Amino acid sequence: MHGTKHLFIPGPTNIPEEVRRAMNVPMEDMRAPDYADFVLGLLADMKKVYRLDNGRVFIFPSSGTGAWESAIQNTLSPGDTVLMSRFGQFSLLWVDMAERLGLKVKLCEVEWGKGVPVEDYARILSEDTTHTIKAVFTTQNETATGVTSDIAGVRKALDSANHPALLFVDGVSSIGSIPFEMEKWGVDLAVSGSQKGFMLPAGLGFLGVSDKALAAHASNAPKMSRCYFSWEDMIKLNDTGYFPYTPATQLMRGLRVSLDMMLADGLEAIWARHAYHAEGVRRAVAAWDGCELVASGPEWVSDTVSAIYTPDGVDARDVIAGAYGKYQTSLGTGLNKLAGRAFRIGHLGSLNPVMLCGAISAAEMALMDAGAKITPGAGVAAAQEHYRSASA
Amino acid sequence: MHGTKHLFIPGPTNIPEEVRRAMNVPMEDMRAPDYADFVLGLLADMKKVYRLDNGRVFIFPSSGTGAWESAIQNTLSPGDTVLMSRFGQFSLLWVDMAERLGLKVKLCEVEWGKGVPVEDYARILSEDTTHTIKAVFTTQNETATGVTSDIAGVRKALDSANHPALLFVDGVSSIGSIPFEMEKWGVDLAVSGSQKGFMLPAGLGFLGVSDKALAAHASNAPKMSRCYFSWEDMIKLNDTGYFPYTPATQLMRGLRVSLDMMLADGLEAIWARHAYHAEGVRRAVAAWDGCELVASGPEWVSDTVSAIYTPDGVDARDVIAGAYGKYQTSLGTGLNKLAGRAFRIGHLGSLNPVMLCGAISAAEMALMDAGAKITPGAGVAAAQEHYRSASA
Amino acid sequence: MHGTKHLFIPGPTNIPEEVRRAMNVPMEDMRAPDYADFVLGLLADMKKVYRLDNGRVFIFPSSGTGAWESAIQNTLSPGDTVLMSRFGQFSLLWVDMAERLGLKVKLCEVEWGKGVPVEDYARILSEDTTHTIKAVFTTQNETATGVTSDIAGVRKALDSANHPALLFVDGVSSIGSIPFEMEKWGVDLAVSGSQKGFMLPAGLGFLGVSDKALAAHASNAPKMSRCYFSWEDMIKLNDTGYFPYTPATQLMRGLRVSLDMMLADGLEAIWARHAYHAEGVRRAVAAWDGCELVASGPEWVSDTVSAIYTPDGVDARDVIAGAYGKYQTSLGTGLNKLAGRAFRIGHLGSLNPVMLCGAISAAEMALMDAGAKITPGAGVAAAQEHYRSASA
Amino acid sequence: MHGTKHLFIPGPTNIPEEVRRAMNVPMEDMRAPDYADFVLGLLADMKKVYRLDNGRVFIFPSSGTGAWESAIQNTLSPGDTVLMSRFGQFSLLWVDMAERLGLKVKLCEVEWGKGVPVEDYARILSEDTTHTIKAVFTTQNETATGVTSDIAGVRKALDSANHPALLFVDGVSSIGSIPFEMEKWGVDLAVSGSQKGFMLPAGLGFLGVSDKALAAHASNAPKMSRCYFSWEDMIKLNDTGYFPYTPATQLMRGLRVSLDMMLADGLEAIWARHAYHAEGVRRAVAAWDGCELVASGPEWVSDTVSAIYTPDGVDARDVIAGAYGKYQTSLGTGLNKLAGRAFRIGHLGSLNPVMLCGAISAAEMALMDAGAKITPGAGVAAAQEHYRSASA
Repeated sequence: MHGTKHLFIPGPTNIPEEVRRAMNVPMEDMRAPDYADFVLGLLADMKKVYRLDNGRVFIFPSSGTGAWESAIQNTLSPGDTVLMSRFGQFSLLWVDMAERLGLKVKLCEVEWGKGVPVEDYARILSEDTTHTIKAVFTTQNETATGVTSDIAGVRKALDSANHPALLFVDGVSSIGSIPFEMEKWGVDLAVSGSQKGFMLPAGLGFLGVSDKALAAHASNAPKMSRCYFSWEDMIKLNDTGYFPYTPATQLMRGLRVSLDMMLADGLEAIWARHAYHAEGVRRAVAAWDGCELVASGPEWVSDTVSAIYTPDGVDARDVIAGAYGKYQTSLGTGLNKLAGRAFRIGHLGSLNPVMLCGAISAAEMALMDAGAKITPGAGVAAAQEHYRSASA
Repeated sequence: MHGTKHLFIPGPTNIPEEVRRAMNVPMEDMRAPDYADFVLGLLADMKKVYRLDNGRVFIFPSSGTGAWESAIQNTLSPGDTVLMSRFGQFSLLWVDMAERLGLKVKLCEVEWGKGVPVEDYARILSEDTTHTIKAVFTTQNETATGVTSDIAGVRKALDSANHPALLFVDGVSSIGSIPFEMEKWGVDLAVSGSQKGFMLPAGLGFLGVSDKALAAHASNAPKMSRCYFSWEDMIKLNDTGYFPYTPATQLMRGLRVSLDMMLADGLEAIWARHAYHAEGVRRAVAAWDGCELVASGPEWVSDTVSAIYTPDGVDARDVIAGAYGKYQTSLGTGLNKLAGRAFRIGHLGSLNPVMLCGAISAAEMALMDAGAKITPGAGVAAAQEHYRSASA
Repeated sequence: MHGTKHLFIPGPTNIPEEVRRAMNVPMEDMRAPDYADFVLGLLADMKKVYRLDNGRVFIFPSSGTGAWESAIQNTLSPGDTVLMSRFGQFSLLWVDMAERLGLKVKLCEVEWGKGVPVEDYARILSEDTTHTIKAVFTTQNETATGVTSDIAGVRKALDSANHPALLFVDGVSSIGSIPFEMEKWGVDLAVSGSQKGFMLPAGLGFLGVSDKALAAHASNAPKMSRCYFSWEDMIKLNDTGYFPYTPATQLMRGLRVSLDMMLADGLEAIWARHAYHAEGVRRAVAAWDGCELVASGPEWVSDTVSAIYTPDGVDARDVIAGAYGKYQTSLGTGLNKLAGRAFRIGHLGSLNPVMLCGAISAAEMALMDAGAKITPGAGVAAAQEHYRSASA
Repeated sequence: MHGTKHLFIPGPTNIPEEVRRAMNVPMEDMRAPDYADFVLGLLADMKKVYRLDNGRVFIFPSSGTGAWESAIQNTLSPGDTVLMSRFGQFSLLWVDMAERLGLKVKLCEVEWGKGVPVEDYARILSEDTTHTIKAVFTTQNETATGVTSDIAGVRKALDSANHPALLFVDGVSSIGSIPFEMEKWGVDLAVSGSQKGFMLPAGLGFLGVSDKALAAHASNAPKMSRCYFSWEDMIKLNDTGYFPYTPATQLMRGLRVSLDMMLADGLEAIWARHAYHAEGVRRAVAAWDGCELVASGPEWVSDTVSAIYTPDGVDARDVIAGAYGKYQTSLGTGLNKLAGRAFRIGHLGSLNPVMLCGAISAAEMALMDAGAKITPGAGVAAAQEHYRSASA
């Protein structure tokens, strides 16, 4: 192989040079007196990205899945009823975790291509006058289908029903990339991970928690056994600038730089950039005969990842294998029921139009190699028109 | 600050240049077709370091504490009785975790400076004729006190009593540094982490499991709620060369190189090198008037870390603060009841005599600055004699 | 700026990750006993890339320009007559250097877009029966115009005339990328640099010398004052594996890896890959209305760089500025009389089709932004067709 | 080998982590519009380190030797008479270069261990009433013997004699480490290199030139043939922020950070730090029975390197080989007539007391291994006393 590999999966994402350099450090003493200031600064800045004035953000040495587990373990008890919906591989996995951890899941099945069924949620919550539902789970961005849901709408549903349930958000592939307002939207638990919008390698799980969630935890009501992901020790040590067990110091140094970059850009600018990048990819998809977004309408499309149905008769696995084997380009695979039917282009994190023109070229070549009858260059041309006329 | 910082805590340890370079990679596609071979090779080589022909080793994106939790959750049930001993901060924390996860702990309190009370264990096990004890926990190397315990002896105690309990070993600061023979010693669950003898940053928790432990898990007997650290999905995916959630790919690339280095050296050579390095430090301690090892006798001393009582009237915190502030050298702190009374020199991982002469010099200068009446250079001179006359 | 910068100038070229990592080393002792073997291995492998069984290759801490100077200083004397030709910025600069160093230049002016005038050279050499011409200079690949010349043809001209002049080749942007056969073609002095086909940063000047050139030097005939670029000390020290002054050790470590990669691929495969990559760019140029290669015919086109005339009325400086400012893409500028009329795409070194589709997209967008009336995506489509149907 | 290699040669020196990281960059476009500001900033800051308000500093892609050559070629003509002195390997090599480039050298031979004979220079200059001497050469810090000369004294000698000769200074191992005042001392040409006090890899040659030297060049008087190291093109391009040939961009990025560090510290602080570090080494030498500095008195000792005679009967080559082979420590070798009689400890650049205690330990062990009868730890103890009581 020669030249660079092209990474267009929806995470891990491409790491900026500055972040990569920042992680290339010798090991350090995570109990040194000057380490505390460094940690306190990180924790404070994480709250800015989460749009949180109150509450706090935990950083676990784990993947995002670990932060999911932490959110549940520290606020709920076995047997608690929770409201969830399932419309893709990641919302599906979260349901599975909730069940394994002993929760009773009231489940809304949704057609893949759509997202959180806000109206159904509203109805169910208004009917739950005894407040048996302890928490409402939402997947803001379903990475498997490229679908973004309306979290503010869920908040409204809770408020209209005057319902006290905690609001959980899986923001793994949304926070730091597309609009997310933890405090404004009244989100109580918001999960993310280092390898998406934060432009870092995998290895850190993030968990934003509201004051309400902290109170639920402090009440000693949650009866779920836990230790590694328990908040008690984390809160105690974090407040002094340290961690209850050895943190991933290298990643923390990278996080420092990625937070600096994000806050210097401003979140609104980051969101606008993601929309600008995403639109070029969608224009390309529209220009490919027989291809179609999995997202079932413009109200559902995601600015961080596009899942794309291949034309009839074209196996998406061939497209993905060809892009990787012949063009050194990693596209996202079709997960679960999308296997063979769709491939994905991740367009979150540190990107620019020329990188995306490369990704679109690779997809276009791989599609044609796999038998798709598309006009050569059509996708790139459509994306170019967009990238030229607009700007981030 | 100028020049390098000197890191002599008992983990994270100094990272070899080769390993550091190997981690400095762009992000990669952890679902790429050629990623599986890479993972399978890692998993196979981890077994070699664990000295395991059967069983398997799990790699979690977590600290070693997470691997502790995984060991318990997947083989035991709330209410199970386990035999443990407590003789330092880390054995203490493990007891705490066991209790939080609902186990009944039969606890042997041991004077700090000694280790696992093999004879007490033997007696208790032989008296437990109904086999209410489901597991025996041991801390091979207590990082807080610099004490190494006799794991083979515990195995013998179990065998003599014909007792079926699972044998758990905390090998966080021992595996890959000092003799550890998982299969030969009949260890069932052995925990370690990336930031010690494996010479990597923190971020990977390792868990070796025997066939007996795997059978205990497969029996569905363990009734502890779990998801992130659950073995089911890990086994299923690992067998194909992948992971159930995004692995820490950067660290995995580093692990590849550190395993290559370890296996090229040979574990026996690594163990000998650690003994050689440690002996120099102990000679220095012996040459410092008023200082003494926390380990209460030569049968307990650890080759990976020395905990050292400061002379009467000398606050160990001053030594540590001075070494860091004036000499850019991180020494290990005295934990829990050793706070103020002892400091620690970590001597595991990638080191050599001149580095250790530097560490000893730093400790010596900081001791004198803090009021210790020791002969200048005495420690270094004693270490030099050792390093010159012997060799790794 | 977000995402990667795109570098498509004809050197410095993109550095492979492996090479970049290899250079990220602490400083080392260039007089250490084990350094000699390392150097001797490099020098031997450089000869393989130069296709040299006899003679030797010098490595200077300099740019390629320094190696030019060394070639002249060590074999010629002030007042010597040399045969040169001028058809681009780099052949022009070489003439300038020759004159500054006191040589009498017999100059063939050639239309920019063509290369070394082999027939003129043949005629002049056959007429020079008294052998006043001491050396014949050729620029194998004129980086300013994207023109490759016929060095084997010049050799034939010398042989036909039975002329003893030394044959000099500027191979800065050709050696290691396109066919170059130092020994087979009877080249006496061949200059190159680290930042082109060798895929390293600038900082090393390479000079291949034949036995005939070494004899010319050893004869003490050359009367040009010199010290830094003098061969005497270099030969003496290189033969022992060392250098007369501190070498650029970091770059040498990178060179080790780039030579390993080049020799593992095989030079024939490298040449084929460059032809494959270049052809895609040329197809794109052909698809752009109003654009044209500076190279005046297929016999002159270069596989390492394409110089491209912009359409009438489109200032090439606007294209270059737009590509850089709006699309983070560096294209080569039009040098000297090509300023404003042409831009260049470098396609040598470590590349692949998707990178080149990105480069072509950037050029295409920048051309349109600058007023060119080209069909959006036309260039990319043409390149895609080529990259899909053929392979390196 | 395990652990870090220890580098205590007098250059290349240890690179700070910040600088190392800064050099780990992808290649860049050295003709990009924003590159000019970067270059202009470097050139301006180089003048600050040289203590130069007027004049300029050139940066050549070369070793320091190349900058020597540039200094001569651009200001002198073949046949010019220059005043030089020889008291070590580097002053010797400079004499050799001057002769090769056609200068007539009026040479003062000085015992090795002393430096520039200021009184002899004063006498000779005052006798040279016809001003046949065009330039006076001095080696501020003779790296081979660890001797520092009095450049301000030479200036006084010139002034007393009212002599117009240019003042050349070899500042390779002094500038950026020990007091050097180019403008105040009336130095006209001052040579340095990247791999010493500038804490970078080798690869950049620096040349500071006064307005008087620039005038000498501009007068067209110098008749030495030159091209690569010629000032004409360099001045023209540098004034716009560019270079006449491809600069070593990676090193330039490192230089940016090392200049930032140096200017943030302040040169006075850097000089004080070097004196503090050096004194510890000298105390150690004094504590080693039978060892002695090559510098023949305290007025000559260098704060950047100590050359040390081994005790009678102890071959310094054995000390160096042992330190390297057994203790992974590079010491400087005894050059020329010092071979076998002396070894050197470089103590310039980015260092700290614990690193130096390590170096002294290594030397001490290697000395004893080679047969020296010194008290174990004596050197380290003496250095510790110094490092504890004083501070940088």
